[in-house]
Amino acid sequence: MFKDLLRYPIIQAPMAGGASTPKLAAAVSNAGGLGFLAAGYKTAAEMKEEINQTRRLTEYPFGVNVFVPGNEVIDESAVAAYRAKIENAAKSVGATIGNGVVDDDDWVNKLTVLKEVKVDLVSFTFGCPESSVLRELQSTGALIAVTVTNLEEAKKAAGAGADVLCVQGIEAGGHRASFENRSEDDHGLLELIRMIKNELELPIIAAGGLMHGKDIAAVLAAGAMAAQLGTAFLRCPESGASPVHKAALNDSRFVQTTVTRAFSGRRARGLVNEFITENGHAAPAAYPHVHHMTKQMRKAAGEKGNPELMALWAGQGHKLSREKPASELVELLMEELKGERFAGMEIRELSMNESAPMHLLLLADPSRDMVEDYLAKGICFIAERAKQFLGVYVLLQKGTDTMEIKNIAVDENHHGKGIGRHLMEHAIGQAREQGYKKLEIGTGNSSIGQLALYQKCGFRIVGVDRDFFTKHYSEVFYENGIQCRDMIRLSRSI
Amino acid sequence: MFKDLLRYPIIQAPMAGGASTPKLAAAVSNAGGLGFLAAGYKTAAEMKEEINQTRRLTEYPFGVNVFVPGNEVIDESAVAAYRAKIENAAKSVGATIGNGVVDDDDWVNKLTVLKEVKVDLVSFTFGCPESSVLRELQSTGALIAVTVTNLEEAKKAAGAGADVLCVQGIEAGGHRASFENRSEDDHGLLELIRMIKNELELPIIAAGGLMHGKDIAAVLAAGAMAAQLGTAFLRCPESGASPVHKAALNDSRFVQTTVTRAFSGRRARGLVNEFITENGHAAPAAYPHVHHMTKQMRKAAGEKGNPELMALWAGQGHKLSREKPASELVELLMEELKGERFAGMEIRELSMNESAPMHLLLLADPSRDMVEDYLAKGICFIAERAKQFLGVYVLLQKGTDTMEIKNIAVDENHHGKGIGRHLMEHAIGQAREQGYKKLEIGTGNSSIGQLALYQKCGFRIVGVDRDFFTKHYSEVFYENGIQCRDMIRLSRSI
Repeated sequence: MFKDLLRYPIIQAPMAGGASTPKLAAAVSNAGGLGFLAAGYKTAAEMKEEINQTRRLTEYPFGVNVFVPGNEVIDESAVAAYRAKIENAAKSVGATIGNGVVDDDDWVNKLTVLKEVKVDLVSFTFGCPESSVLRELQSTGALIAVTVTNLEEAKKAAGAGADVLCVQGIEAGGHRASFENRSEDDHGLLELIRMIKNELELPIIAAGGLMHGKDIAAVLAAGAMAAQLGTAFLRCPESGASPVHKAALNDSRFVQTTVTRAFSGRRARGLVNEFITENGHAAPAAYPHVHHMTKQMRKAAGEKGNPELMALWAGQGHKLSREKPASELVELLMEELKGERFAGMEIRELSMNESAPMHLLLLADPSRDMVEDYLAKGICFIAERAKQFLGVYVLLQKGTDTMEIKNIAVDENHHGKGIGRHLMEHAIGQAREQGYKKLEIGTGNSSIGQLALYQKCGFRIVGVDRDFFTKHYSEVFYENGIQCRDMIRLSRSI
Repeated sequence: MFKDLLRYPIIQAPMAGGASTPKLAAAVSNAGGLGFLAAGYKTAAEMKEEINQTRRLTEYPFGVNVFVPGNEVIDESAVAAYRAKIENAAKSVGATIGNGVVDDDDWVNKLTVLKEVKVDLVSFTFGCPESSVLRELQSTGALIAVTVTNLEEAKKAAGAGADVLCVQGIEAGGHRASFENRSEDDHGLLELIRMIKNELELPIIAAGGLMHGKDIAAVLAAGAMAAQLGTAFLRCPESGASPVHKAALNDSRFVQTTVTRAFSGRRARGLVNEFITENGHAAPAAYPHVHHMTKQMRKAAGEKGNPELMALWAGQGHKLSREKPASELVELLMEELKGERFAGMEIRELSMNESAPMHLLLLADPSRDMVEDYLAKGICFIAERAKQFLGVYVLLQKGTDTMEIKNIAVDENHHGKGIGRHLMEHAIGQAREQGYKKLEIGTGNSSIGQLALYQKCGFRIVGVDRDFFTKHYSEVFYENGIQCRDMIRLSRSI
């Protein structure tokens, strides 16, 4: 399931052309997000090497994005006219306009490599491959995301068997992922999420102009499962974007972005510079022809530090991109997303160790049904001492040095009684007696006051298990009127 | 304060041209949202009559939107060429192309009327009036909203003294509110909210393609104070949009919207129809000239039921607009926004009666400081019986037949103990003894299970007092570790 790839709902967008490096992808994945490599413009061999590099840098999942080759019918005379129009610009930086050739971006070889190296997530841009292609990749264990810009494309991707939709709003920097180059059916991100959610069940990754944790909160509220941020990561030290490009994102001379075919022959959003202003209106729909034609000019301009002849891809809101190491940016986005800081505490999303057996369960006055339910789940329990615990579950994981307590109020008599100070002290004493070195408690639905109490008892917050209870015990707990969406994990040495 | 005008964070957008009727505005305001009249294209006298009509239909606040006249320099030859181009279209419905005249939309008289009739909220579109104009209206008690489409406009509005910014994303239906007709600096709604919030403190109304409660949740998460929905209300029976327009919004032959100057000479988003397809690219930036030129044609087309020559204004996402009475739509949006339905219960946002004296306060083991704090607030209390109430406050409002209980856990010994069944029964008995006819309880931070318990005790949810505790007692309660963002109100007869 796509959800299983996510610790944080933050995905670093694949940015072809150099920005997305193995270092960036790994840093994001290590920090709790999901990093992405961008295979576009690279050979299959280069892509493979980047996948291997990334794997050396992180043990966590990351994605690989691939461009789907098109077969457009182009207007040769328009391309020739455009060549004539832009020749002087190229000359001005000592470059020439290249041949407007067609290529398939090493498509077949990339698919072969992806099947061979078995990645966790493959996303596609500029179209949706045949179902058979998706199925072959899926059979290697990969999940498939298809980038879509309107409802019609989303339906095609769903029909072809995609696992996830990457929904790209008009705000997004870089290339529009439209299946057809000539499509100009642009949608604001929020509206597009709504239209797609209204008709399709697939999980949604929201992309386009997202810079701040509150933007992520917004797309999650709209129903997306994760947010994909590109421009927000461009200025990270791990990003391979050129220094000129990085500087331009925050340069007051660039006040606006626009969507243009000027650089590649396909619509893409970038900072408005001289090249776009002079040539944007004349650029033909001819991809990748125009990309190849302007390649040398862009490279030469970058080397000369001239932003006016470069493709300065940028999403709307680029001024709010932040120059920070990727791991710090991910943490900051999460803090902004959560909207609450607990003084001096680090909050980290943890994944539950689902395979660890739970050996001891203390229940406060459990009903017969609950007891049977737990027995059926293979959990041993001791109920007789439970009265002292006032609605607290204690679960011990064998074979670790950690004793773990989960705290839940169980029925209407015990609703929200929480885990008082005396109880915490009792638990600490008990864990110490039993030779544990660390005591962890998990608490759902805690108020700030409860958390403050745990702090007073020497605990610090080490993480949040999102949806733990909903996922694992929803039938049991919801029936008993318990609402536990997140489990906050606290830890102390004993 | 703008916030005081809001019971629900839902504003019905002013839609000039007939859709926004007094009936629609009043229905929305009566339902808990904020209705809006659209004075654009009307005379000051017509506006005044509509304000009076609306006041007869609702006691709640509503807004009035006014177009700010521009002084554009137009290209006469382009206007003449456009006239020639569209003459046949007008003829085809038996109409002629009108004179491309300039008018100021009765600007001065409208300001005079607004000062005279003293409305709660005036919003402006197509520009920001001089500070002096804003101040004069503000001196009558009106709050001022200015509609903005980019950060620069937002700064101008803030500088002129606006109280609120209505932030219009590119998704919005109808006219772009750009201060300058020629501006094409379009922004996706989410991104624009972020850019503006990053620099300005003013409250934000978010507008553009919002159709569903989850869209509202998203813009609130992004930091907006309210959502403004236009197209979502177009199909309500109270809306004055023509039947042809209403039908077109949900007609599969209209698959796309676009932004065009075809009908008015100013950019506006509407359903792509024949007139736009044939003339949109040729339409000059000349407002209100082109508006007057196409007026008869649009009217005649509407009467003949021909949507191809009408301005079918529509926001992106229009297919998800719903044909429902405005009050039902507001309730449905609120349900979707909250994301939870309590079976068979109506949830309504209430405003606290702040002037009602609170006469009895029962505290469970209050600290001396807390007692003194309450005394200082003029609240009498009886603490000696409080032990029975385990952290429950009971507040009686004199002179009503309602006894009101507010339930909060007060310190770490009582955290979240909630109000158990025996306690509820005790309270019901006590209220009955004292001759009350209704018992209301307010409960912060309630779990679904607690709410279920109250239901079992015969209570039904009558409302939510948002931010009640945060607003009124934050110092007291937060210091004591209590997190009460919303107060859910329950009521039962006794």
